[in-house]
Amino acid sequence: MPPPGSASGPGAAVITDPAELRRSSDHARAGAMTVGLVPTMGALHAGHRSLIRRARAECDRVAVSIFVNPTQFGPGEDYQRYPRAFAADLTLCAEEDVDLVYAPSVETMYPDGFATRVRVTGPVTETLEGAFRPGHFEGVATVVAKLLSAARPDRAYFGQKDAQQCALIRRLVCDLDLGTEIVVCPTVRDPDGLAISSRNAYLSPEARRQALAIPRGLAAACAAYRRGERAATTLIHFAAERLADSPDLVVDYIAAVDADTFESVGSLNDRCEITIAARIFGTRLIDGVVPGAEEGLAVGDRGVDPSGP
Amino acid sequence: MPPPGSASGPGAAVITDPAELRRSSDHARAGAMTVGLVPTMGALHAGHRSLIRRARAECDRVAVSIFVNPTQFGPGEDYQRYPRAFAADLTLCAEEDVDLVYAPSVETMYPDGFATRVRVTGPVTETLEGAFRPGHFEGVATVVAKLLSAARPDRAYFGQKDAQQCALIRRLVCDLDLGTEIVVCPTVRDPDGLAISSRNAYLSPEARRQALAIPRGLAAACAAYRRGERAATTLIHFAAERLADSPDLVVDYIAAVDADTFESVGSLNDRCEITIAARIFGTRLIDGVVPGAEEGLAVGDRGVDPSGP
Repeated sequence: MPPPGSASGPGAAVITDPAELRRSSDHARAGAMTVGLVPTMGALHAGHRSLIRRARAECDRVAVSIFVNPTQFGPGEDYQRYPRAFAADLTLCAEEDVDLVYAPSVETMYPDGFATRVRVTGPVTETLEGAFRPGHFEGVATVVAKLLSAARPDRAYFGQKDAQQCALIRRLVCDLDLGTEIVVCPTVRDPDGLAISSRNAYLSPEARRQALAIPRGLAAACAAYRRGERAATTLIHFAAERLADSPDLVVDYIAAVDADTFESVGSLNDRCEITIAARIFGTRLIDGVVPGAEEGLAVGDRGVDPSGP
Repeated sequence: MPPPGSASGPGAAVITDPAELRRSSDHARAGAMTVGLVPTMGALHAGHRSLIRRARAECDRVAVSIFVNPTQFGPGEDYQRYPRAFAADLTLCAEEDVDLVYAPSVETMYPDGFATRVRVTGPVTETLEGAFRPGHFEGVATVVAKLLSAARPDRAYFGQKDAQQCALIRRLVCDLDLGTEIVVCPTVRDPDGLAISSRNAYLSPEARRQALAIPRGLAAACAAYRRGERAATTLIHFAAERLADSPDLVVDYIAAVDADTFESVGSLNDRCEITIAARIFGTRLIDGVVPGAEEGLAVGDRGVDPSGP
């Protein structure tokens, strides 16, 4: 385990055992302190930092979990090459005054004889990402159930970029009586509009240039929504026009869905999401906006030109 | 909600909301008190009473959950006619100084849109009861995950009679990092040897007379084990001889299994279980013993004649 590299303090305590995590939370709660958990797969970036800052502002104790969960990667996906940067992650956690880093091993999370799976059924896990990544959401639901059971946080923080995952987790927490408030934080974007993701590290300059069609497509749909357009087919059409500007972009889907259930909608309201998944030179990116919410507007407000390149 | 009928005190507080249950446990733990949970489907009998007494002896606060869980009954099983006796249950809880009764409604446990299932895979859920009652163990795993998530007990108490369920729950709690110690308590038997079960209420005198072949079969196997016999086929043969004494008994299975994994064994050791499921005039009964444990011996020690009727 690399030592915490800390620029601003002693650094967060690093623990690897779920029982220790539980004791820490129980201790905090016994002192009438609230506990916030930011579940991550490490390779922390500005998106994670925004989650941690929100947790820091809202909770007395902040824990960050760092675990690259093998069960949410499919065969042929990027589990092996997924970015890992534990020392830098600890530095970021120290900078943000995180109290605790929970970094269990794969053997701790999935010991010999492990046999339990948590599955959320219905459109929220079966459409879109669920259809393109079989088994992915079962892996997510199981690991999140484990993390929330061990940490017992008052609140847990997730990024809106993974909107379908957020909807799944809200359902899971409600259904299993986990008692954690799920806080969904706005997607953080680079100045060029690309949603920040650990997987952006895979992009060549050319891949990145073409990938910008994704936020531009979303911005075009948002602009149309602001002009009063509500028909899903029309909004999807505006987004698709922008995606077509990038010849090497392979679109898995563009969809307009209810943000809670992820069922397709014909006409959007302020609780609907437009979501895109696309591959560029082998890297798969997802992004989305809620055009009726502030976050949806932000795509256009941060310098992305909805009229395209 | 019937009022608590109490012979010995003010009676347990009855709550119906998982958030209230969680607050109660957090409050206890904040005061350095331990919490014990006895999950039941109500119709409380001497077996439940023994679980409650064990919890009362070991924990500062004792909660009993009463919930007839529809998702662990298959189509054509006895969900509708399963015995319900809430007022008498509250009396028993008051007699045993239970602090809290958690009695949620079906709508609270499974609200509109409920979509989450917890599944434990492998022999522990796929053989024996798992094979004869498809979906049963998924219902059990899901409701137990919910109850433990809401109650967050230090310990939860289950009866050895449902040995496969106990093995499943131990696996579940380990895998999901639920942090509860699972305490398995010896099967309680009536003086004639029949394991106490809410379903015994369905038995006519003749059905009950024939059902006694089940504990007699287990006692015969235990007696042979004590004499040094370890071969599964031989021990099963001794049990089967006794079952054959009851002409209307329909045997679903007699099996010798590892008590943790429920995998079949050829030769028994002290961690192995002999388990029987059989139907008599439409009522399905299960029973089992660990011949190498004290509990296994108890079958013969309580007046059951291993030589048969």
